[in-house]
Amino acid sequence: MAKKNIKILSTSINKKTSELMDAINTSIDIDSRLFNQDIKVTKAHALALNKLKILTNQELIKIQKGLDIIVKRHMDKKIKFSRENEDIHMNIESLLHSIIGETASKIHTGRSRNDQVATDTRLWVLESCKNLKNQIKLMMKVIIKQSKSNQSNIIPGFTHLQVAQPVTLAHHLMAYFEMFKRDLSQLEFVEQMTNENPLGSAALAGSNYNLDTKLLNKELGFSKSKTNSLDAVSDRDFCVYFLQSLSMVSLHLGKMSSELILWSSNLFNLFDISKNYSTGSSIMPQKRNPDSLELIRGKTNIIRNQSSSLLNVLSNLPLTYFKDFQEDKKMIFDSYDDLKLCIDVMTEVLKESSFNADNGLKICEDNFASATDLADYLVLEKNISFRDSYKIIASIVNYAQLNKKNMNQLSLGELKRFNHTIDHNIFQYIDIRNSVTRKKTPMSTNPKKVIEAIKNAEKFLKK
Amino acid sequence: MAKKNIKILSTSINKKTSELMDAINTSIDIDSRLFNQDIKVTKAHALALNKLKILTNQELIKIQKGLDIIVKRHMDKKIKFSRENEDIHMNIESLLHSIIGETASKIHTGRSRNDQVATDTRLWVLESCKNLKNQIKLMMKVIIKQSKSNQSNIIPGFTHLQVAQPVTLAHHLMAYFEMFKRDLSQLEFVEQMTNENPLGSAALAGSNYNLDTKLLNKELGFSKSKTNSLDAVSDRDFCVYFLQSLSMVSLHLGKMSSELILWSSNLFNLFDISKNYSTGSSIMPQKRNPDSLELIRGKTNIIRNQSSSLLNVLSNLPLTYFKDFQEDKKMIFDSYDDLKLCIDVMTEVLKESSFNADNGLKICEDNFASATDLADYLVLEKNISFRDSYKIIASIVNYAQLNKKNMNQLSLGELKRFNHTIDHNIFQYIDIRNSVTRKKTPMSTNPKKVIEAIKNAEKFLKK
Amino acid sequence: MAKKNIKILSTSINKKTSELMDAINTSIDIDSRLFNQDIKVTKAHALALNKLKILTNQELIKIQKGLDIIVKRHMDKKIKFSRENEDIHMNIESLLHSIIGETASKIHTGRSRNDQVATDTRLWVLESCKNLKNQIKLMMKVIIKQSKSNQSNIIPGFTHLQVAQPVTLAHHLMAYFEMFKRDLSQLEFVEQMTNENPLGSAALAGSNYNLDTKLLNKELGFSKSKTNSLDAVSDRDFCVYFLQSLSMVSLHLGKMSSELILWSSNLFNLFDISKNYSTGSSIMPQKRNPDSLELIRGKTNIIRNQSSSLLNVLSNLPLTYFKDFQEDKKMIFDSYDDLKLCIDVMTEVLKESSFNADNGLKICEDNFASATDLADYLVLEKNISFRDSYKIIASIVNYAQLNKKNMNQLSLGELKRFNHTIDHNIFQYIDIRNSVTRKKTPMSTNPKKVIEAIKNAEKFLKK
Amino acid sequence: MAKKNIKILSTSINKKTSELMDAINTSIDIDSRLFNQDIKVTKAHALALNKLKILTNQELIKIQKGLDIIVKRHMDKKIKFSRENEDIHMNIESLLHSIIGETASKIHTGRSRNDQVATDTRLWVLESCKNLKNQIKLMMKVIIKQSKSNQSNIIPGFTHLQVAQPVTLAHHLMAYFEMFKRDLSQLEFVEQMTNENPLGSAALAGSNYNLDTKLLNKELGFSKSKTNSLDAVSDRDFCVYFLQSLSMVSLHLGKMSSELILWSSNLFNLFDISKNYSTGSSIMPQKRNPDSLELIRGKTNIIRNQSSSLLNVLSNLPLTYFKDFQEDKKMIFDSYDDLKLCIDVMTEVLKESSFNADNGLKICEDNFASATDLADYLVLEKNISFRDSYKIIASIVNYAQLNKKNMNQLSLGELKRFNHTIDHNIFQYIDIRNSVTRKKTPMSTNPKKVIEAIKNAEKFLKK
Repeated sequence: MAKKNIKILSTSINKKTSELMDAINTSIDIDSRLFNQDIKVTKAHALALNKLKILTNQELIKIQKGLDIIVKRHMDKKIKFSRENEDIHMNIESLLHSIIGETASKIHTGRSRNDQVATDTRLWVLESCKNLKNQIKLMMKVIIKQSKSNQSNIIPGFTHLQVAQPVTLAHHLMAYFEMFKRDLSQLEFVEQMTNENPLGSAALAGSNYNLDTKLLNKELGFSKSKTNSLDAVSDRDFCVYFLQSLSMVSLHLGKMSSELILWSSNLFNLFDISKNYSTGSSIMPQKRNPDSLELIRGKTNIIRNQSSSLLNVLSNLPLTYFKDFQEDKKMIFDSYDDLKLCIDVMTEVLKESSFNADNGLKICEDNFASATDLADYLVLEKNISFRDSYKIIASIVNYAQLNKKNMNQLSLGELKRFNHTIDHNIFQYIDIRNSVTRKKTPMSTNPKKVIEAIKNAEKFLKK
Repeated sequence: MAKKNIKILSTSINKKTSELMDAINTSIDIDSRLFNQDIKVTKAHALALNKLKILTNQELIKIQKGLDIIVKRHMDKKIKFSRENEDIHMNIESLLHSIIGETASKIHTGRSRNDQVATDTRLWVLESCKNLKNQIKLMMKVIIKQSKSNQSNIIPGFTHLQVAQPVTLAHHLMAYFEMFKRDLSQLEFVEQMTNENPLGSAALAGSNYNLDTKLLNKELGFSKSKTNSLDAVSDRDFCVYFLQSLSMVSLHLGKMSSELILWSSNLFNLFDISKNYSTGSSIMPQKRNPDSLELIRGKTNIIRNQSSSLLNVLSNLPLTYFKDFQEDKKMIFDSYDDLKLCIDVMTEVLKESSFNADNGLKICEDNFASATDLADYLVLEKNISFRDSYKIIASIVNYAQLNKKNMNQLSLGELKRFNHTIDHNIFQYIDIRNSVTRKKTPMSTNPKKVIEAIKNAEKFLKK
Repeated sequence: MAKKNIKILSTSINKKTSELMDAINTSIDIDSRLFNQDIKVTKAHALALNKLKILTNQELIKIQKGLDIIVKRHMDKKIKFSRENEDIHMNIESLLHSIIGETASKIHTGRSRNDQVATDTRLWVLESCKNLKNQIKLMMKVIIKQSKSNQSNIIPGFTHLQVAQPVTLAHHLMAYFEMFKRDLSQLEFVEQMTNENPLGSAALAGSNYNLDTKLLNKELGFSKSKTNSLDAVSDRDFCVYFLQSLSMVSLHLGKMSSELILWSSNLFNLFDISKNYSTGSSIMPQKRNPDSLELIRGKTNIIRNQSSSLLNVLSNLPLTYFKDFQEDKKMIFDSYDDLKLCIDVMTEVLKESSFNADNGLKICEDNFASATDLADYLVLEKNISFRDSYKIIASIVNYAQLNKKNMNQLSLGELKRFNHTIDHNIFQYIDIRNSVTRKKTPMSTNPKKVIEAIKNAEKFLKK
Repeated sequence: MAKKNIKILSTSINKKTSELMDAINTSIDIDSRLFNQDIKVTKAHALALNKLKILTNQELIKIQKGLDIIVKRHMDKKIKFSRENEDIHMNIESLLHSIIGETASKIHTGRSRNDQVATDTRLWVLESCKNLKNQIKLMMKVIIKQSKSNQSNIIPGFTHLQVAQPVTLAHHLMAYFEMFKRDLSQLEFVEQMTNENPLGSAALAGSNYNLDTKLLNKELGFSKSKTNSLDAVSDRDFCVYFLQSLSMVSLHLGKMSSELILWSSNLFNLFDISKNYSTGSSIMPQKRNPDSLELIRGKTNIIRNQSSSLLNVLSNLPLTYFKDFQEDKKMIFDSYDDLKLCIDVMTEVLKESSFNADNGLKICEDNFASATDLADYLVLEKNISFRDSYKIIASIVNYAQLNKKNMNQLSLGELKRFNHTIDHNIFQYIDIRNSVTRKKTPMSTNPKKVIEAIKNAEKFLKK
């Protein structure tokens, strides 16, 4: 009965809608996820109506109890939402009607589905930002932990995928810490932009009832109301901000997974992915495939494009509400779920896997990673101009490559052939381990500086 | 038992995988949709193995019967796929094992999941192209039907959303026919590019068994095999082509829905959307909202960006297979489902709604839609240069606007004030209905030409 | 001479590069735009080298004067950058060399093009954010001005492009003010994220010289240094944030232009676009096309996709620097230029055009915009339930439509036929002008509330 | 004089347009590139007007000669297009007017800028497709040449970036041949869809003059006319098809450049990029950076998103022409130029660089690339089930890894420990070189099959 009434109410003009129309129009399969938010919003609205005497105290209590019963049933998985009631708002209202009767009809006074759904969605985004921040922080803790275990381990720093200069593994890992730290800042920006309450806007022009917006904000945890009702019901910018921030987390997860896949390759061999997060081949027994990381990369490559798809939906529409907006929810829900899964998997992969630091040092030695240091040696100790020094070292590198030797396999005699002033001190500069300690700036790979950076990172996470 | 064996086989290195790994790695929830394709591919492969004597005739029959049992059970909804068996291929193989025992193990000889999934997916895309083409043709038939009912009805043709020149409604509708016709061509292009059989490529380097590729092609309806096995297992271009063609159908559906939403607006009032495909407002009794069209627009605005997301997944990867590719399926399945729904809804909306041609004519009259014709009148009948004629007519339009009259409400006297040569003939040119018949080219809005175009369109659809 | 030296220095390995390589590799045509930033950064670096005694006081002065000469010549348009010197950094260094000789070579000590270009680009983004904020604020002032001129003018508020409820034009325009206010917040977020100094990072591992990063920050106006050198040289997130914020400004400009194009249509006739910003048709004298707005819409539809293209470039790359990053600059420069032009044009369009408020009121009357108010009338004054009231009003609306009358053309007698309790008071509710004053919430269209909102908006802009 | 007249003609309503309006509205800086096309189209139109007696023979000749003079001057770089005349069409008409006087005015009879620009752009796209196909074929020839030089050279085939099975370098390179072959097919599809002549459509409703469309098609090389004038002036689908095909070429170039960058890394060392297409580091003498390939990757990552940006411009617009369409040209011109450059650079990189096949074989040996073959050995020669065989080989691989040996460094005694039936034949299977010859299917890496494929490829290019 209740259901039918509500159905008539909401779509009064059309006598019947076709099955196809139901298929495209119904959103309950997706927006049922806003159940908690919608209950919360409805309770707050009931309080505001009570303050205006539109609901008596008795009616208020009736509604509150009715909603509590619905929550209880929902937790007990006893509610099957009805597609006939289109969306979560009408489903809850209809359920309330079936429980408390006609009083339920009063709850929609002074509001509209337009401001209701905008408010529900904002509450969901706020909660999801908080969740994501927490998960990202857990991942950052694992990054710190791995960094602390690898403070003195040396790996090649790459530019253009070429071995460039030695860096510590800790320094390299902490670069990712910085990226995720930026993501936390962006999520805070999203929260700030989402933290505005549309209630009071009704369908588009504002409510005919003088709802206490301060009460509504306090009940729902908003710090302020929207300033303009037309904007309030049509503004989905906060959903774009949300997806934009997810794009950036995706960028960073994608970068990290790409790098670890590369490092998992036989030829890099810098990363031993946990057996729990890799798979073997059904026909090639020697292989260990970093499937988990590839799936993170694949998924984040999709997520990072979602803000662009949502912009497609929102663009070029005049004010105010259009049904097109219904499509925002699937996008933010799916992107959130996928990204959260990716963060959680990455956290575990980082926790359970290990790095082959030994090979890192070997790669540096095999690939002349201290060549820049040698150029500096001639400049600093032998007063040779950088340009000349650069040429001398380039010749030594060529010679070593031709003779299939590393720098530290060359004798002083061999080295002197390229410049007679070269002396024993050069071996200090050839030694890969000295390269990192020679760095001076606060952001450098010098282990002392990295230890400092790690300490600050730990402090940051404790905040 | 069988399941466990297969599980061990496929991921031999890792002893256990975590729940999180299962969550991100398992694809069965999505690729179970390839059930029919995978059965078909496995049957064809069994024939090829039999021809090579790897399967005896008895074994072949055993496998065929086993697969038939699986199909039967699946139709009876008695199969619950197991997430432990990761994907549809291993699920089917495991089921087969549980039915026919050890012989099932032989079926994977000479192939790999890499070529198997590529083949399944190609079969799915081929079938989906065919389905989409059929649905689009049904929609095109409705467009023809509406065109035939509106061959002499006149509406304003717009440029820049300004009333420009009168056109027939049929002519306007047939412009959409042209768009969808292009979509059919693009879908045919997709079919052509998808119609290549990867079987025989095995994991990446080709099969050690001399599988009869002609037999495999014949069984599966492919016109040829892939030429290069490395390409065969990593090529997902056909999925991009598929999504690119869906982008274009989306573009056209989005255009049509945008236009019909505009025409449904009180201020255009050119389209009366069927009550079955619109909704009322919960608080505004006078409204009729074209929700179905807005949802088509919203959904197509998302679908049209999917090829770009898939390109994100595929780009910048070296050869050959990566697990990232697993993400392609959700995208093509979801996009197909959503687009098919949009086409079907649009077909019904067009079928069940009606156009307000009367208002179309009125808009033309109220907005000087025959002004170009008047300029032509002076050029053709009075030998005035187009430039001068243009200025004279512009002055008449200004005068009429100031006096809140339509062109056909001006007297000959009033008209003569702007140029004394103007005579009674001018009313022939003022008459909106004559404007369309004055057009000469085959693609023009001249009703005779449009009738011709509709005939050709009908012939095209009968092909 | 200098040029040749520098060229040899920078690309030491390759003896010659082909013309094609120059064509794809050279960036000077684009990054010459960073001239001012690069000079500033080089001066700051010189100070830091002087503090470390790497540059004597004399050398410092020589370099400073040399750079000043370059700036002067550049302002006098006497510099033609050389494509052989690839980029702006090497061009300036080469010019410096040709002016002050060998001392110029010392300037590159302790830094690298990797940290240099990152710093230059950050300075450019910071300046561009500031410029955009200023231009947006100018546009917002015009919005306020138009709002103040239209505080009591009534237009239809639309949902689903259907006339829904009357709102004031000021209220409608101020909805856009809110959007652009959000854009200012996002640009501030971009500034915050960009305000980190990469200098001291050198190529990737940090500088061997203990550069005074506080001095460098102070000289360049950064509030802090980057924390991690590997991150510093590879981080282009700030460019994405910049483009993401441009996406949102684009979204809002696109919305506004779409709406004004619609309002310029003969059938809406709510906006008279300035003749300076529209064009006529070459063959249709009656038309006035809002070309400027269409171009804003077209351009912003492209700009809003640029963050997605930049993400394509940055994604899936391991650390640290790759030449791919060179592509970021064209994107941010072009998007900035195009968007700035769009903002400026929109500002002028809004300033020079006028709204047809009279027609706004007429549309409301013709389309039953006060129907919701009538439903409220029966609820509030006649104690009829909303559901029943809704049905009664729907019947009245139907009756009026059939009889081609507006609500205010119905007699009391006619109205009473639908419900006998209806009395004279109903005409208070029918009157469109009363609808807006009946709204109560702070964000509503009630003119008193809107005046308050405008005051706050003016205060905001004065900050 | 002429200029001014034309200016008045085209924008009759507005007396002056502002500088800002010129800045956003003028397209001549971009569409001057359609000079040749516009001349060609104008000449064809003149012929059609002559056939209709609208132009006398004398007038026709006058116009033709006038246009020839303009072409001559343009080739001599003596024409400076005027921004006041907005676009290429009006510039040419104005120039013609200044040369031949009033007769020039007749040329615009029966057409409109709407059909003119659509026709010009189609001609440009057709020519550009042809150019791209030619450049791609040149690149494919180089791929064949490199393949022929590397028919027996063995490299590791990778899946998941793990060494999987040995393949020949020729086979690997020919996989790219397949990709580019698909691109040729797609470009042919684009040509087919672009090959429709809009002339005769005039502004939107068709021409009042019975232009001979067959003549127009013949003169311009179109195989047919557009069927519907409303569609003809608003259809920019061919531009999207064009950009979609560019996306795919970009995907393939991006894949190839990514792979070659990886192969250029010290750790893969499979590709020695030509010194002409790489750069050194300004501070690291040992490095050789594949900048050219990184720039190809960067640029193609941008190009592949352009169809999505163009779809943004075109979507959700009702019929017919909007000024938004003006934005299509910059996108197709820039994307074409950038892509052409990328193809040309890739062609040269492939031509001038060399592969380190020796290292390819070594990688295979060091990483157990023949493990699958060993599993087959036990199955085929020792009748052990694949599952058991797989386990035995996995154990041998583990043993070898622990003892830091390759497979071919294990003694028969060591091997027998894992299964006593193993005999000398196993070394046939261990030998990497035998792995490829064991493959049987036509698309496999078996050198005989690859030679066949190369022959077919050569035949294909000769067509």
